[in-house]
Amino acid sequence: MKFERSDLLGLEDLTREEIESILTTAGSFVEISERPIKKVPVMRGLTVVNLFFEPSTRTRTSFELAEKRLSADTVSIAASTSSAVKGETLKDTAKNIEAMGIDMLVVRHSASGAPHFLAKALDCPVINAGDGAHEHPTQALLDLFTARQKVGRLDGLRVGIVGDILHSRVARSNIWGFTRLGAKVVVCGPPTLIPPGIESIGVTVSYDLNEVIPTLDILMVLRIQTERLTQCFFPSLREYSEFFGVDRKKMSRAKKDVIVMHPGPLNRGVEITPEIADGPNSVILDQVKYGLAVRMAVLYLLSGGELTSEDSH
Amino acid sequence: MKFERSDLLGLEDLTREEIESILTTAGSFVEISERPIKKVPVMRGLTVVNLFFEPSTRTRTSFELAEKRLSADTVSIAASTSSAVKGETLKDTAKNIEAMGIDMLVVRHSASGAPHFLAKALDCPVINAGDGAHEHPTQALLDLFTARQKVGRLDGLRVGIVGDILHSRVARSNIWGFTRLGAKVVVCGPPTLIPPGIESIGVTVSYDLNEVIPTLDILMVLRIQTERLTQCFFPSLREYSEFFGVDRKKMSRAKKDVIVMHPGPLNRGVEITPEIADGPNSVILDQVKYGLAVRMAVLYLLSGGELTSEDSH
Amino acid sequence: MKFERSDLLGLEDLTREEIESILTTAGSFVEISERPIKKVPVMRGLTVVNLFFEPSTRTRTSFELAEKRLSADTVSIAASTSSAVKGETLKDTAKNIEAMGIDMLVVRHSASGAPHFLAKALDCPVINAGDGAHEHPTQALLDLFTARQKVGRLDGLRVGIVGDILHSRVARSNIWGFTRLGAKVVVCGPPTLIPPGIESIGVTVSYDLNEVIPTLDILMVLRIQTERLTQCFFPSLREYSEFFGVDRKKMSRAKKDVIVMHPGPLNRGVEITPEIADGPNSVILDQVKYGLAVRMAVLYLLSGGELTSEDSH
Repeated sequence: MKFERSDLLGLEDLTREEIESILTTAGSFVEISERPIKKVPVMRGLTVVNLFFEPSTRTRTSFELAEKRLSADTVSIAASTSSAVKGETLKDTAKNIEAMGIDMLVVRHSASGAPHFLAKALDCPVINAGDGAHEHPTQALLDLFTARQKVGRLDGLRVGIVGDILHSRVARSNIWGFTRLGAKVVVCGPPTLIPPGIESIGVTVSYDLNEVIPTLDILMVLRIQTERLTQCFFPSLREYSEFFGVDRKKMSRAKKDVIVMHPGPLNRGVEITPEIADGPNSVILDQVKYGLAVRMAVLYLLSGGELTSEDSH
Repeated sequence: MKFERSDLLGLEDLTREEIESILTTAGSFVEISERPIKKVPVMRGLTVVNLFFEPSTRTRTSFELAEKRLSADTVSIAASTSSAVKGETLKDTAKNIEAMGIDMLVVRHSASGAPHFLAKALDCPVINAGDGAHEHPTQALLDLFTARQKVGRLDGLRVGIVGDILHSRVARSNIWGFTRLGAKVVVCGPPTLIPPGIESIGVTVSYDLNEVIPTLDILMVLRIQTERLTQCFFPSLREYSEFFGVDRKKMSRAKKDVIVMHPGPLNRGVEITPEIADGPNSVILDQVKYGLAVRMAVLYLLSGGELTSEDSH
Repeated sequence: MKFERSDLLGLEDLTREEIESILTTAGSFVEISERPIKKVPVMRGLTVVNLFFEPSTRTRTSFELAEKRLSADTVSIAASTSSAVKGETLKDTAKNIEAMGIDMLVVRHSASGAPHFLAKALDCPVINAGDGAHEHPTQALLDLFTARQKVGRLDGLRVGIVGDILHSRVARSNIWGFTRLGAKVVVCGPPTLIPPGIESIGVTVSYDLNEVIPTLDILMVLRIQTERLTQCFFPSLREYSEFFGVDRKKMSRAKKDVIVMHPGPLNRGVEITPEIADGPNSVILDQVKYGLAVRMAVLYLLSGGELTSEDSH
């Protein structure tokens, strides 16, 4: 059976079955990254272009390695060195790249909706690697995958997402993903960083992390972008840490087997203390590890690969 | 039969037969980029370095993909991150790269003649990917190839090149290429952007696009580099567009089957309107597509590959 | 037999036997770079990440090509585009990269000791590609290899290292390497650029190049970083060249078969004149050529490859 979508733009549009089929396929790729020879020839002779209009190490490297492990040819283009500086439109840049006979485009852009726009303009599959404050679907898929691996199930779990919900594409994609797979999501942060009316997409809201923590099976800590400070979203890093930083004291109220996630990069001592980030409940490096398998699965499925059936496990 | 040249520096020096043999060989590479597995092993184990002293997305990406489809190993070096910033001479940079045992160097440089200088200094083949306002031979070859594919022949065609002829290596290489293959070239633009005496290389000059358009089989629109504006080459973008921008009104006087080319990136609304750039006469994306086949042919021939004979088609 | 070390951090810690075993293995890789197909499958399916926190063309390109010739998958990350700009710690950056299932990390960093710190933090092998003013072990290994190839032996040779010893990781690694292999090292430069007490690591010091030159079998000229000028380490480039620049006049006093080395990039006319850099005694391009073989050997050995035994030569 094939995956029916031709692009991966966000989790908002995906059904529970579609998300689960990606996760199941990812499961079969985890093993490949543990082999001595981490390479399968399923995308041999196919070309993937990674077009990044925002700087990124981890996501770009993760995609590049996933592509190489599938034996694809890969070219990465950073916007700062691209024709964007010459005033070319986004569509022209992408149409030109597509005209070179590429098989898939991975795109990150600061504008929400840019990958959707390109998916309409191009014939080849488009993968959203992060668009503005909108979605970051492969991040959410790897978070779902990690949670399922570590907890065993997602149905009925209680997930807390803590921090700057307002500007976070990671939060948005995870809300769609976790709720669709049957988890309950609570978002928690200072009122200025919670979008008004967010309850309408099926989450509950709390402004008190201490109250939320004891109820959680999964605690997802978001990165605080310190540049928000100057935009008056919160008074100081110290005050933010005091109320929303995840530390030993707050964690003392948590369930024993809660898992702690963070999309990285970490601001150690701001939104999370080192002892929690490196502690026994942290699955932060597992997220990175499973990210590769999830991206391999997405690339493979969009290139026409077969879905792994749940039975084959 | 082998290609006799050891470098591709410009079209000025090539004979009609040499240009035609590259185009014929490119024809056999078009098909490879349409296969499901776009890869042939003809350059396996060979190393190509792309050394770009000017920023470039499309040309660099096109070369990288061409090299990968020929199974070469490829490394791209951008000048901004290179030893150039440490004051090393161009020759030392190139000699050092060559000493690493590379098989071919693709170079772009802002100085006219830089690739010729390197071709003399190095033993390995050198491909000019654009040198100052001098030549951009692979661009002209792909323009010739596209024109031949679309029109069926070049002999006797009338080609108009419109815009900033003075600063354009694309114009220069195309003038050599089209005239050598038997086409008639007219260059058209404001007097400040036409090099005085250019008639001596076999073109005619016009300052009136409306007069030229009806006579053309091929209309090649050059990019206006808006930074020229501050250097007083023309009074304003609006005035430039009024007289030399290719739009529906001017195109209404053109032959029905004229083809419209542009080397990209487009300044939509300046030198060309979107309806013409995206219209039925435009072959702009074909140029990009065929560019890959042409670059594969050049790389292949300079690495010692066999010429495709005209008969085999 | 296998190489016993899991990282290559510096030459200070290596025994004579270990250094010799790397050089001997490098010897067997020289031939591969001279083949028409410069590729061996010994690292197929393994992933090497080159993480460069300082700009570099030659070292990064040399490592990339070495990795590709061993058939490894390779990703290079430049610090300027990395998460470092987002305030992530070095350790977190590296742990994240490792979590992607990589097999080896090559790192350059402006801080002395950074690779050692990472070697402790990571499970995968770490190769130091230059750390601050501390060590640059692959540069010294290629210098040793070149010297041995050109002179035939190292034992008892007299090596002069000339220039800015104080800030040079190349000097430091070469001092450890040459002395361990039985050569005598003299360092020579202006007093402000010689670290006080350097005699304690087994070298002699001279402030007079004219006096030193006649005694040398190997003359290693270091690059003068012109930015030191503003820090008052020496009065002017002209005065530096007068006393420590290697030119025909000073070389007239040298042994006939002295070899002249330079790690590059060259400041022609400052620390060395063109006629010496390009003259018959110069082995500067051989250093670059052998650098590839040496890096292939290091990558191969740290990935678990077999040592080449001396007998097999």
